[in-house]
Parts: sequence; structure tokens; C-alpha cells
Amino acid sequence: MILRPISPSRPLQLSDRDANPPRGLPRGDALKEALAGELKKLEALQNAFYADSRRALLVVLQGRDASGKDGTIRTVFGACNPQGCAVTSFKAPTALELSHDFLWRVHQAVPARGMIGIFNRSHYEDVLVARVKNLVPPAVWKQRYRQINDFERHLSENGVTILKFCLHISHDEQREEFLERLTDPAKNWKFRAGDLEDRALWKDYTAAYRDALRKCSTPWAPWYLVPSDNTTTRNYLVTRVINEALQKMDLRYPRASKEVLALKAKLQK
Amino acid sequence: MILRPISPSRPLQLSDRDANPPRGLPRGDALKEALAGELKKLEALQNAFYADSRRALLVVLQGRDASGKDGTIRTVFGACNPQGCAVTSFKAPTALELSHDFLWRVHQAVPARGMIGIFNRSHYEDVLVARVKNLVPPAVWKQRYRQINDFERHLSENGVTILKFCLHISHDEQREEFLERLTDPAKNWKFRAGDLEDRALWKDYTAAYRDALRKCSTPWAPWYLVPSDNTTTRNYLVTRVINEALQKMDLRYPRASKEVLALKAKLQK
Repeated sequence: MILRPISPSRPLQLSDRDANPPRGLPRGDALKEALAGELKKLEALQNAFYADSRRALLVVLQGRDASGKDGTIRTVFGACNPQGCAVTSFKAPTALELSHDFLWRVHQAVPARGMIGIFNRSHYEDVLVARVKNLVPPAVWKQRYRQINDFERHLSENGVTILKFCLHISHDEQREEFLERLTDPAKNWKFRAGDLEDRALWKDYTAAYRDALRKCSTPWAPWYLVPSDNTTTRNYLVTRVINEALQKMDLRYPRASKEVLALKAKLQK
Repeated sequence: MILRPISPSRPLQLSDRDANPPRGLPRGDALKEALAGELKKLEALQNAFYADSRRALLVVLQGRDASGKDGTIRTVFGACNPQGCAVTSFKAPTALELSHDFLWRVHQAVPARGMIGIFNRSHYEDVLVARVKNLVPPAVWKQRYRQINDFERHLSENGVTILKFCLHISHDEQREEFLERLTDPAKNWKFRAGDLEDRALWKDYTAAYRDALRKCSTPWAPWYLVPSDNTTTRNYLVTRVINEALQKMDLRYPRASKEVLALKAKLQK
């Protein structure tokens, strides 16, 4: 197991140091080669997963602004057949969405069997930004941890495998990324003025992330903390965890029945 | 222009010969290299298209069983960022879908601005299988051509660029593909027993395709006939047409305002 799920019973720092690549990983070109190998493996596994169609896979990506959610999607799921993947980006809820419970829009985006659904942000925003910016009273967000765990258990019991990744960057790395977005005209569009407001609330978000990750890392929907200051490390770790989960599924290509195979004779005439 | 749109005023054979690669294209390794170059170009264009977000692109893929719709999606849109692509596979309509007009489910899957939506089969099934298998009376499917044209014009006037590809294979090539699916255990799952029923109706489908392509190739939503017996040719032609359409759009990366750029000072401290 390359990354252990977050343990609810152990303290979680989320310090700048936690954003560094862990020990024991290959580095430099060796890491790039290892990533390429894992992506090849993912491509083959996803093909079998799609054909097999017994389960769905839901991948949740969370992380601060510029932590690399978009880049992870591009590289990791770029290895997959687009027909078997569906990305949902959760933005600020619309008026219609706000008139429902917070899991309503999320449930609609849950992948069908055979599909990999990727959430770029998710229902976890409802215990992160909602808490930090006081969008709802504490009594409301506090009960959401249990509601989320119940919802995710329901999905898991009904054929959805869930993997959750928190992409963790350091305070310095975020500054570098923001500067690049403001400097490169082709990246300007990725920068929102509100990004700096959230950066000013760094510590509040750290506290909110700590609770979300520890309270909602369950046996049926584990959270992984992914050190993300280094892009290749981040992509490698995410891909490895997904591949390990897919490999455990004993995926099979459904075979045609004897009756169907007998149809070959009709075609060979 | 690598492929001309189908002209409503010219006859359309859809013969086996039309499935062969057209003259004037590179061949062999040169074609593979040309395809790789076009895919690189598509990747860059899609990135700009996503950032630009002024229009949506809807790509409709139609074609007989085993004509290569899935393979086109894997190769061509495999070059795109999964976050900017959404594939919708239209299967036999559900009871709910049948209780609505035939464009209801299609409208819901139209891509948002900035997105490329790929339809694997589409509303054209409602003038193909619906006609060949008598699922609705002639009076019903006959008026659908105009309804489709009106619907597509509406989309086009409201920010959706539409490109429609009919992947055209020969009778022999389909047999080869079916035999492979029945022979390779990892491909069995792609074969439906109903595929042979549709093959027996080859000529009826040809007539239905002819009408659909000629009656619905419009200035705002052109149909392209893609010779598809050769996989690389097919992928190359589809990618070229998409790239030509994207290149015409004068795509721009939105620039940040002076006020936003001034925020750099805050970060550099």
C-alpha cells in the first residue's frame, strides 16, 4: 500500500512539511517513468472496469486553490477512455441547488456502474467553505460529517467504490502558483480575485480540512492525504491508489454465451 | 478543407467503395505521424477553447454497429482534457424518455459553453432505427428531419457549434469486426445478438442514413461522411475537421483586469 488512508484516531498536522514528497519514492526521471507505467496500467484497468460494469468508481478531489485538482484530472484521467469517465466540477451552488439539501446535486452526479466519476470539489465544500465563511450556522455544518458518512456508506453498499484525495500544498507553493497565473497571460483565467481572500483564511481552512478528513475517513470511503508540492509525486500517488483499488476488484471481461458464439457460423458463410 | 460537408442537393451512394480512404491523404507511417500532429494540435486548441468559454462544441457520432464510434472517442477525445469533455451514449430510450418528445433527453445532454460534448449515437437514431424498425408511423419520423434542423439551428444560434460525423464502413469490414468480437474473449462484451438483425437490414439502414444525412446537412450543422474501413484515416479526418472548426473560432485566453494583476504586489511581499 503506497499511501495509507487517514486515520480518524491519529492527529493530522497538515503542515507545510506534509506537502513534501514522502520518503521511499523514486525521484526525478525514475519517478516520471514509474508514473508513465502506472498510467499505462490504469488505461488497461479502466478498459476492463468499463467492460465488467459491476461497480462504479467515485474519485473525490479536494484541495486549496492551485493545489492541482485540474492538473491531476488532466494527467491521471487523461489516461482513461473519455467514454468511461465523467468529471463534475462543483461550483458555488445555484439558487435551485440551494433550495434542496446539500447532497441533492451530488447524488445526481454519482457515476453509473462501469463509469469512473471524478468530482472536482464536492460535498466536502459544505463542511469547508460553508464553515469557514459562516454560510450556515455551526449546528448545521456540524451534523454534516455524519450525514456525509451515512450517504457515502449507502453508495458504497450499492455498488460505488469511493476514493477521496486531499491534494495538500504548502503556503509558499500556493504563492508561486498564484504568481504564475498572474504572470502568464494564458493562465490569467485560472485566477479569481477571491483566491486571495481564501489564502488569508489559510489557518481556518486548515482546521476545517483537519476535521473533514479525520471525521470522514471511513472504511467504506477513505481519505488520502496527497503531498502535492511536486506535481509528478502527486500524480503518481493518486494513480497508484486508484490502480490498487481497481486491481482488488477482480475485473472480468464478460464472455458471450454459447448461443451467441454460435452466431459466428452465420458470419463465416 | 479536408472533408466537404454532405450536400443536400447531390446524390449520396453510401456504397462499400465510400468506406475506402479518399485519395490525396498520406498513408502508412506518414498518416500516423500526421494524426499524432493533429491530436497535439487538438489538445492545445481544446485548452484554449475551455478557457475562452464563449461557445460550446457538440460532436455527433453516428454509424452502423462496429463502425468505430467507440474507437474514435478513445483516440480523438483521448487527446483532450477530460474536464472539458462530456460523452453521452444514447441507448434505447427509457420509459421516462419515451414519455417525452424525442429531443427532450438530447437537449439535456447539450454541452455547456467551454465544453466539448460528444454524442455516441444521438437524436438521429429517431430517424434511423425508429424508421427501419417501424417504431413510429412514417408520418411521425418524416416530420422529424425538419424538427431536428430547427432544433440544431436553435442551438447554433445560441452558442453551440455542431459537427456531425457519419462513420461509414463496408459490409465486409463489419463482418470482420463482428468476427473479431466473437473470437477475442476480451471483446465478446461488445457484441449484441441484435447486431446481426441490424446487419440483415443493411439496405434499409442505407436508405435511412441517406435521407438523414442529406436532409439534415445544414449550414449550421453539417454532416461529414467519414470513410472508416481504415482506423487511422477515420481518426485523422475527424480530428482535422474538428481542428479546422476550432481554428476558425479565434480562441482567446481571457486576460485578467488591471485591478486583478495589481494583486501580484500583495503576493510578492
